Amino acid sequence: MENGSTKWSFHEEKNNHQQQEEEEEEAPNKATAISIRGVLETLMGNLDPEEYGRPAIPLAHGDPSAFPCFRTTSAAEDAIIDTLKSANYNHYAPAVGLLPARRAVADYLNKDLPYKLTPDHIYLTLGCVQAIEVALAVLARPGGNILLPRPGFPQYETRAASSGLEVRHFDLLPEQGWEVDLEAVEALGDQNTVAMVIINPGNPCGNVYSYEHLKRVAETARKLGIIVIADEVYGHIAFGSTPFVPMGVFGALVPVLTLGSISKRWVVPGWRMGWLVTNDPLDLLRDSGVVESIKNYLNTTTDPVTFIQAAIPKIFENTKEDFFSDILNILRDAADLCYGKIQDIPCISCPQKAEGSMFVMVKLNLSDLEDINDDIDFCLKLAREESTIVLPGVTVGMKNWLRITFAVDPATLEDGLERMKAFCQRHAKKQSILS
Amino acid sequence: MENGSTKWSFHEEKNNHQQQEEEEEEAPNKATAISIRGVLETLMGNLDPEEYGRPAIPLAHGDPSAFPCFRTTSAAEDAIIDTLKSANYNHYAPAVGLLPARRAVADYLNKDLPYKLTPDHIYLTLGCVQAIEVALAVLARPGGNILLPRPGFPQYETRAASSGLEVRHFDLLPEQGWEVDLEAVEALGDQNTVAMVIINPGNPCGNVYSYEHLKRVAETARKLGIIVIADEVYGHIAFGSTPFVPMGVFGALVPVLTLGSISKRWVVPGWRMGWLVTNDPLDLLRDSGVVESIKNYLNTTTDPVTFIQAAIPKIFENTKEDFFSDILNILRDAADLCYGKIQDIPCISCPQKAEGSMFVMVKLNLSDLEDINDDIDFCLKLAREESTIVLPGVTVGMKNWLRITFAVDPATLEDGLERMKAFCQRHAKKQSILS
Repeated sequence: MENGSTKWSFHEEKNNHQQQEEEEEEAPNKATAISIRGVLETLMGNLDPEEYGRPAIPLAHGDPSAFPCFRTTSAAEDAIIDTLKSANYNHYAPAVGLLPARRAVADYLNKDLPYKLTPDHIYLTLGCVQAIEVALAVLARPGGNILLPRPGFPQYETRAASSGLEVRHFDLLPEQGWEVDLEAVEALGDQNTVAMVIINPGNPCGNVYSYEHLKRVAETARKLGIIVIADEVYGHIAFGSTPFVPMGVFGALVPVLTLGSISKRWVVPGWRMGWLVTNDPLDLLRDSGVVESIKNYLNTTTDPVTFIQAAIPKIFENTKEDFFSDILNILRDAADLCYGKIQDIPCISCPQKAEGSMFVMVKLNLSDLEDINDDIDFCLKLAREESTIVLPGVTVGMKNWLRITFAVDPATLEDGLERMKAFCQRHAKKQSILS
Repeated sequence: MENGSTKWSFHEEKNNHQQQEEEEEEAPNKATAISIRGVLETLMGNLDPEEYGRPAIPLAHGDPSAFPCFRTTSAAEDAIIDTLKSANYNHYAPAVGLLPARRAVADYLNKDLPYKLTPDHIYLTLGCVQAIEVALAVLARPGGNILLPRPGFPQYETRAASSGLEVRHFDLLPEQGWEVDLEAVEALGDQNTVAMVIINPGNPCGNVYSYEHLKRVAETARKLGIIVIADEVYGHIAFGSTPFVPMGVFGALVPVLTLGSISKRWVVPGWRMGWLVTNDPLDLLRDSGVVESIKNYLNTTTDPVTFIQAAIPKIFENTKEDFFSDILNILRDAADLCYGKIQDIPCISCPQKAEGSMFVMVKLNLSDLEDINDDIDFCLKLAREESTIVLPGVTVGMKNWLRITFAVDPATLEDGLERMKAFCQRHAKKQSILS
């Protein structure tokens, strides 16, 4: 094509993303378009290509499926092979999901609830990511705001921005087991607040909330007149002293939208099978039109793979309790190992041992480090020098912290933490080491 | 919960959907939130529950996978069973898709292109629906507009609205084989136009565009300085005298974003496996930041199932040509049967026999009908009285037309058209029959 002979309108103006980034620089409180994937890509790009023979150690994301000790149960694989081979599930799925799968999810969740969900309360989604999209899209309204945890999961900020919801952050308190700062929630909420989000078991903090704390969350939300969005993608991944309690238990106190998935508990994030649930025995969400909005929204989106949906009843039915407990045992040991090793690493500190999910948050003591500017700088140099990937805290809303995954096989975890130790020792201020 | 003791903020204001619908009533030119699924649900709800023993005939949507004669090839099923059983693909996929799958899609498309795509030009998506979402989201900018065909596929209107793109419709001309009214395109385009959409083979019209017409489309877009979004979800489903030509052939004349999928050609819409492709040998999309925007956007969305992505190379490699030709033969016969039968049905007329895709558009001659108000009324009564589902044209942008699917098994198609005939005869004005 000759230059200048035509105009390309996409040349003339900034595209959406460019424009958004520039606006963000000017308005730092605006929801950012930061993505864990984007940051990981940058870190992976900083691995040293010269460092042959030492494999990169991935301590940054919640997907241990590649390690043999985290292989999913054959019950799940077999269920899918059956539905695929039947050729009965190659068709488009209904927007809300296949009925038998919705019934199976309701039964699965009902084991822990004081009332009964029916399939009508269950919407199948493409993992939890789509459940977040749907929840925020249907709750959004002009001038509305949403209360999000800090640290948290950046997908909420992204989806709030695309739904036009203002984001207000409340802190999770490291010195109180990462509990929600409920006073902050009360102070932030107003008549335009549509919902608050809690993630339990916690990503990125590895905490598990007690029944009592969840009840106080519910009471606070009720006082504000807002919905609780309960992200339970790590549901049942609790291996410490606090048992997992689903937020839906308090559904009669406050309407709860629960987001869940088989991604983590069955270690199959690539299967993209999740759900959005209205835990709302008083039917407030139906009466207020939210349920109708969910259905309308799902009519315009794409669905989980039909034959995977169809396998859900058998996956739930045939998975042995041993499979879950084996995974929890590995994770418990890994969390212990991780916490112990971190005590020996200079310049970082961990306020709380993980009791759930696959992560722990670690504070970077920058003043003890010689030549590290911030968490991003730390992670870039760690990738470069030690081929070890951890997530800068800024990605999840806490600058100069790190999110570390312990959900890898034990030898890999130990190796990765040794590398971090060598790195921190090398970069620690001399006086700090000698003192 | 006692009433009145708390306020629920979602009670106080209309939610997004309610608000949107009301705005649409006032501004009929605005993009509508109409969805094929929503309309189908309404029609299915109008089936007569008293009409036992006569199964409903689905002539409304493009998914024949439930009919044994449209069963997908075992090569595709086997490829998926292999990748699933390997347990190597339970992990999250990269945002752009697995490299071997992207390479396979590039090779598949390269057979019909005068230049070579590489995996870098391919982004794997959740069917074509997500490809539409990505394309419109990354091209959107404040004040931007997009040119869409009428009739068309309502997902474009939905996504334009959520991306903030103004929609301008150009007509497809029934008397010219549903070709694009290129004069209208030229008149509609301005400096804020970002793209035009063509769907070929055509949904809802069943047309297949000639090389010459596609070239004129490309030249018009080039003149306007806009991108062509080429929806080829029905790519290669062409069984008439006009061969299928991918729009990407003209990629050096104008940048083309091609959307495709295995949903239709392999008859597996429930597998949710599609792609977005930059057909752009001059790299204008890269230079203008569109490619970067696509990657950023995909970092925040969910992906096709990893083990299905991993199966793509074998699916392409092992599918026999016979499988495709058998399906085309069935569709050709069905399109012939459909066209012939419609000639015998009073009060409807078909301007053009289908040569591709799975649909044909049929005009409702309302003045010949006694007690039918419009296309929706026709379809509701047809569902009620004859348990036959066809899509009201208004759903795809053409009021008082109907979209009929011929992609069902032949006996079902014949039965459905006989029912339509009986219905039309019953509802025809008396003088019209006698004249």
